[in-house]
Amino acid sequence: MLKDYKPAAPEDRGKLKEEIKMLREQLLALEQPVRDQKLPVIVLVEGWSAAGKGSLINELISEIDPRFYNVTSPVIKPRSEDRYPFLYPYAAAIPENGKIMFYDSGWMEAAVHRLLRREITSREYRDLVRSVNEFERQLRDGGYLILKLFLHIGKDEQHDRLRELKDNFETEWRVTADDLWQHQEYKLFRDSYSDFMEKTGKQIPWHILDGEHRRMAVRDALRLLVEMIDAGLQNGRYVGKPFKESFPLKKMPKLAEVDLSPAMEDEEYRSELKKLQKRLAELHNTIYRKKIPVILCYEGWDAAGKGGNIRRIARPLDPRGFDVMPIAAPEPHELNRQYLWRFWTRLPRSGHVCIFDRTWYGRVMVERLEGFCSEDDWKRAYNEINEFERQLTDWGAVVLKFWIHIDQDTQLARFTDRQNTPEKQWKLTEEDWRNREKWPQYEEAIDEMLQKTSTENAPWYIIESNDKKYARIRTLKIIIKALEKACEEHFV
Amino acid sequence: MLKDYKPAAPEDRGKLKEEIKMLREQLLALEQPVRDQKLPVIVLVEGWSAAGKGSLINELISEIDPRFYNVTSPVIKPRSEDRYPFLYPYAAAIPENGKIMFYDSGWMEAAVHRLLRREITSREYRDLVRSVNEFERQLRDGGYLILKLFLHIGKDEQHDRLRELKDNFETEWRVTADDLWQHQEYKLFRDSYSDFMEKTGKQIPWHILDGEHRRMAVRDALRLLVEMIDAGLQNGRYVGKPFKESFPLKKMPKLAEVDLSPAMEDEEYRSELKKLQKRLAELHNTIYRKKIPVILCYEGWDAAGKGGNIRRIARPLDPRGFDVMPIAAPEPHELNRQYLWRFWTRLPRSGHVCIFDRTWYGRVMVERLEGFCSEDDWKRAYNEINEFERQLTDWGAVVLKFWIHIDQDTQLARFTDRQNTPEKQWKLTEEDWRNREKWPQYEEAIDEMLQKTSTENAPWYIIESNDKKYARIRTLKIIIKALEKACEEHFV
Repeated sequence: MLKDYKPAAPEDRGKLKEEIKMLREQLLALEQPVRDQKLPVIVLVEGWSAAGKGSLINELISEIDPRFYNVTSPVIKPRSEDRYPFLYPYAAAIPENGKIMFYDSGWMEAAVHRLLRREITSREYRDLVRSVNEFERQLRDGGYLILKLFLHIGKDEQHDRLRELKDNFETEWRVTADDLWQHQEYKLFRDSYSDFMEKTGKQIPWHILDGEHRRMAVRDALRLLVEMIDAGLQNGRYVGKPFKESFPLKKMPKLAEVDLSPAMEDEEYRSELKKLQKRLAELHNTIYRKKIPVILCYEGWDAAGKGGNIRRIARPLDPRGFDVMPIAAPEPHELNRQYLWRFWTRLPRSGHVCIFDRTWYGRVMVERLEGFCSEDDWKRAYNEINEFERQLTDWGAVVLKFWIHIDQDTQLARFTDRQNTPEKQWKLTEEDWRNREKWPQYEEAIDEMLQKTSTENAPWYIIESNDKKYARIRTLKIIIKALEKACEEHFV
Repeated sequence: MLKDYKPAAPEDRGKLKEEIKMLREQLLALEQPVRDQKLPVIVLVEGWSAAGKGSLINELISEIDPRFYNVTSPVIKPRSEDRYPFLYPYAAAIPENGKIMFYDSGWMEAAVHRLLRREITSREYRDLVRSVNEFERQLRDGGYLILKLFLHIGKDEQHDRLRELKDNFETEWRVTADDLWQHQEYKLFRDSYSDFMEKTGKQIPWHILDGEHRRMAVRDALRLLVEMIDAGLQNGRYVGKPFKESFPLKKMPKLAEVDLSPAMEDEEYRSELKKLQKRLAELHNTIYRKKIPVILCYEGWDAAGKGGNIRRIARPLDPRGFDVMPIAAPEPHELNRQYLWRFWTRLPRSGHVCIFDRTWYGRVMVERLEGFCSEDDWKRAYNEINEFERQLTDWGAVVLKFWIHIDQDTQLARFTDRQNTPEKQWKLTEEDWRNREKWPQYEEAIDEMLQKTSTENAPWYIIESNDKKYARIRTLKIIIKALEKACEEHFV
């Protein structure tokens, strides 16, 4: 792509100035409609060092209300020091509805950097390119407008600009060793950028801007932005259609087929519990040392025993190395962003354990049944979630998902007990009763969820919890086995 | 304190076990009342390396619902790499109402570490101790229950424990160079810890626990926690009384005395604007290089021209180095924490500029007038805010506060203009009209605010904005002057 790029002939300055002025006014007039229609806008500005990404962004925003946009410039850390998944800083920075986020370089720069620094294998690079395509598609399908720009300059021009920066005391610190490396390996970078753009340009196209003629680049960027927003406003907020990707899935039984009779005697429970918790404590130490991230997902019927189960897992863990994340209804600032955002931002650092007490699966359960999202939204979510979880396991995380299962009679007995025991009454709400009435609808949704999202890399386990003791021991054993496997496979 | 500490005689194991069991049950029973009364609880666990802070916390939480507590273990960075104020990680981690946060070491460890590593001068240490006292008092006055524990072991015991950790392959990585340094300099640390505890133990006492007898330490910690929560529940949520500290204040005129006639011709405005923006861009570069944090606070009447003023400041800034933070009504998770929390967590990194579009002064304006906090709360806030801002300037920040001022006639003219101009109508809300009716009450509150919070280190400027052009130029000049001063004073 970049190799064959032919810069256009310079245009008349006066005319350009006029065009830029007009486009700025158009952009300004779009501000309020974007707010009203709550469109979120992402502008990714990639390009060569010293191509002028910062000043391009500056020109784009110069007339916009500062409350209407933000600029993020994620720092590229060496992989060995990066404690989060590759996409984490970009996913954490997505704009709220009705706002523009400018990424002053983003996932392309980081991916190419990792590849050329040999911090990842070519296979990891392929996975990473795939995850970028998934990320962009998920945002687009969630109604985000995305503009991807590459600001291009030739090697000679880059040389002159770096030299000028270097020769001035006030600016010489701006030229980093990475900038110089990129300049020396210009051809290598050019081919890698081209390769990345080819592999990620099919869904959402790349636009190459001529960085050697600043005003033309500004004009073109403004025009692209205005056109994109204009079209977005006219078409209304986009809702992606569901699609089928074939993840390797584990066969799951229907909930109705699950035998809930397994139970455990008190004495056996106590001795098993002690033994398993001791083992889990040892493994937690190794996990921490080997920097393996662990994500445990709990879902289940009300009163199934999630809380007590989680407590038995948490007990042997070093409190410095784990967190329990209770997930309630989303708050306004969370509703204002793509639905996975509040989970991206809650991911554990590598070496830490995060126990999610309810999860992103709310999308295909409560949000589906209560109509908090459209049918297309929840139907699309199965794949989106599978992709999200594959990104987590690609990162090296152990991801385990538990459906804590009881039958309706057991639930009724536990509700009644809660109602009749003063210190437990707070645990029982009107909503629990209402949800109980919808048991059949929930069961259908849960069956579908279990069928469609139990992947090899992030499997579901149905935990028989009519007997809570049995359930706890079983969960502990599953976790221990998975952690042992991960510790064994992981080179330090 | 630690020098004269006499460990108690070991107690009977069986009895201790019994006591711990009972106390755990008591703590468990307090969980729900704490939730109901929305009490936030802070447990600070400081102490020697290898004294067993982690396992102590583990014992304390072992029966508690994981949704009810959190553990934070802020990392101590070398000062040169720390881009935030000293208290930042601790302030960012304060619990929500109805939850317990355990700090696995905290501000004592960090302060003593900085002092002994000679990363701060003794004067800076004194300021830092003062800021810790302010921080703890503000939280207490805001209804937080705070328990401060120090887990003590002797030098010999520490030696044996470190040796044991070191000799085991699975645990040897846990012993850091800092741990060994602390051990070698045991006496020095002991005296420094003692000194810190003496200087910070007057408002909220320290409790020394005997780390050589783990069960006794657990029992004592549990008892202290239960007693504190019990008392907290009985007394009801504490609301601190206002008090007077004498900050050096700048004399401010009353709003009614301000001459709003200054204006500027279009031509002069354009040439001044261009010149000043150019200068600001240069200074932004220096600020960034010298890592000086800059905090610009905007308050003002509705339609006074805050937005346009901010835009003229933002325009010349490099978008990678600044953020505009629009402050609206607090969201639920923000209301659930001390009122300054949402500003602590929005502070810029050193070298960055943050423009607050409305600020923490909402406490003494809208929250005061609308009754969103108690009289004691807003009366206390003047001092609390002065303290907060002093912590920011001690950190090295430039803090400037602008009251964008217009008179009632001008406001009416601008409201009317907004009402009659379709593309401006969104800027005018019912609330603006309601606020306008309360002009006299607001004016009184603002006058009081300006009198009480215009400190030498973080002064207020009343910006005459009947003529917006004049206002913009004046603000730019004030900012440039302050930044020039800061750049000159700051050694790189």
